Amino acid sequence: MILLLTNFTSNEVQMWLPLLEQALPAEQFCVYPDLPNLADIDVALVANPPAGVLATLPNLKLIQSLWAGVDALLRDATLPRDIPLARLVDPALTQAMLETVLTHVLSLHRQIPAYQAQQQAKVWQQLPQPSAAERKVAVLGLGHLGRVAAVQLKQLGFVVLGWSSRPTNLEGIQTFSGQDGLQTMLEQSEILVNLLPLTDETRGILNAQTLSYLPVGSSIINLARGAHIIEADLLAALDSGHLQHAILDVFTTEPLPTDHLFWHHPQITVLPHVAAATNPITAAKVVATNVLRLRSGQPLEHVVDRTRGY
Amino acid sequence: MILLLTNFTSNEVQMWLPLLEQALPAEQFCVYPDLPNLADIDVALVANPPAGVLATLPNLKLIQSLWAGVDALLRDATLPRDIPLARLVDPALTQAMLETVLTHVLSLHRQIPAYQAQQQAKVWQQLPQPSAAERKVAVLGLGHLGRVAAVQLKQLGFVVLGWSSRPTNLEGIQTFSGQDGLQTMLEQSEILVNLLPLTDETRGILNAQTLSYLPVGSSIINLARGAHIIEADLLAALDSGHLQHAILDVFTTEPLPTDHLFWHHPQITVLPHVAAATNPITAAKVVATNVLRLRSGQPLEHVVDRTRGY
Repeated sequence: MILLLTNFTSNEVQMWLPLLEQALPAEQFCVYPDLPNLADIDVALVANPPAGVLATLPNLKLIQSLWAGVDALLRDATLPRDIPLARLVDPALTQAMLETVLTHVLSLHRQIPAYQAQQQAKVWQQLPQPSAAERKVAVLGLGHLGRVAAVQLKQLGFVVLGWSSRPTNLEGIQTFSGQDGLQTMLEQSEILVNLLPLTDETRGILNAQTLSYLPVGSSIINLARGAHIIEADLLAALDSGHLQHAILDVFTTEPLPTDHLFWHHPQITVLPHVAAATNPITAAKVVATNVLRLRSGQPLEHVVDRTRGY
Repeated sequence: MILLLTNFTSNEVQMWLPLLEQALPAEQFCVYPDLPNLADIDVALVANPPAGVLATLPNLKLIQSLWAGVDALLRDATLPRDIPLARLVDPALTQAMLETVLTHVLSLHRQIPAYQAQQQAKVWQQLPQPSAAERKVAVLGLGHLGRVAAVQLKQLGFVVLGWSSRPTNLEGIQTFSGQDGLQTMLEQSEILVNLLPLTDETRGILNAQTLSYLPVGSSIINLARGAHIIEADLLAALDSGHLQHAILDVFTTEPLPTDHLFWHHPQITVLPHVAAATNPITAAKVVATNVLRLRSGQPLEHVVDRTRGY
């Protein structure tokens, strides 16, 4: 039996459940907190699950996340360590993230924030307009989303650099890894896009030191997790003029508190965590694929490596 | 001899002239108003030229514009009617316009203006986020720039429609023409991109009537000429809530007068005519190609059809 273990509203449950039942017609479902015999549950579909529940399920064989990021799940000390945990890797979510990356990279490339400031001041002035081929865009994180984004940016004509914790190759993209590689890449990054998973290694990766490596006048786009950036260090880098602009979709506290300085900072664009929302219609099919693999004894897809954290 | 006949500043002339001399080493150049024997001039390179001068050149064989648009030139009653007039069609300019189209279509697609309004009000709210495949983008004008833009938008996943005054085909794009076709297309256009040439036929093409065909909540992007839109009609359509947003790069009067209502309208983004600036480095090479074709008796490229006006 499949347990839907989430913090969803009843409206959200009513949206998800028929889609899951349609994608998995042979399965029985139950929805937390309305639980049957716990021993009957062998699959849990989770999204911000209440702590402790998973540990009470004696026959669990698969924990399937309904989100792409699993950092919050992994921080839960009660999460069973020996049950496969799968991330949601959904082509529709990838496409959404791709659109997000292009939207914000192009906005910074074409100095839209600067033109908006000019509009408010009624200033008619043409700013320098290098072509994409003269613009270096760097992608932090070369997992599935990072690789797709880097390739698409390259196709649009940008000079693309990419960094991942471990060395990797990507055609047409100059790749970097490790701490030295990070500094070398950041020193060339006019527009930096963060798509890293949040792990012990990447928490606070954008701090006073690493932000200082960026060229004067560069900008950053954070689409990953708020905890990747030390917020005070970012504010200092913007206020000093070292950084030109930051587009932030994620924050250490969400929703962003109303008294937070980011809301009214002229060099910060605040977005309410909308880079790539899970689409229940497509996600239900992706989830179904993994459940059917479990039932037929095939290897599960997108299982998280607990030692890497993603 | 080649005459540079423009309203360029001396700084601009000093930028252009060496590039032209380098691209056409066998040619002699003169710069208005410093004119030699008028009978020696057989090519004029023009950018907002002073009226009347071209008519005084007895041996003119080619008028080569340094801009893509020639509507202002054609409105000059003193323009010689029997001398070939060529537009600037520069791959670098095409690439710049392509980047501009993508920048603004993606911004509207992802509701960035609405999120900016939310930021000012400190509102954390996720808005509906259809994918590109669920978004209809319509391109007005299927000339060189319009066709390239339509194809690229299609590649990014949008549903793309296109309109031109005369019927044309474009793979994967639903095309329309004529007045009936215009209405049919506008009725489906969630995001409308104007890339038309300015002619007697297209002047004021976006007016109270045609704007009323657009779906409620749709948005427009004008990258062509201010005179394509009846400004009062656009304001009315925005104020009534029929249209959601307008991104305007061009205006009937440029620079946009400081007392113009557009500057502070919350549903209008004002840009200072920066969609695609001529790049002297690449443009000099394009101009040289046409001059060399003239010298060797080959057909000239991108000659304007005076009856069509582009």
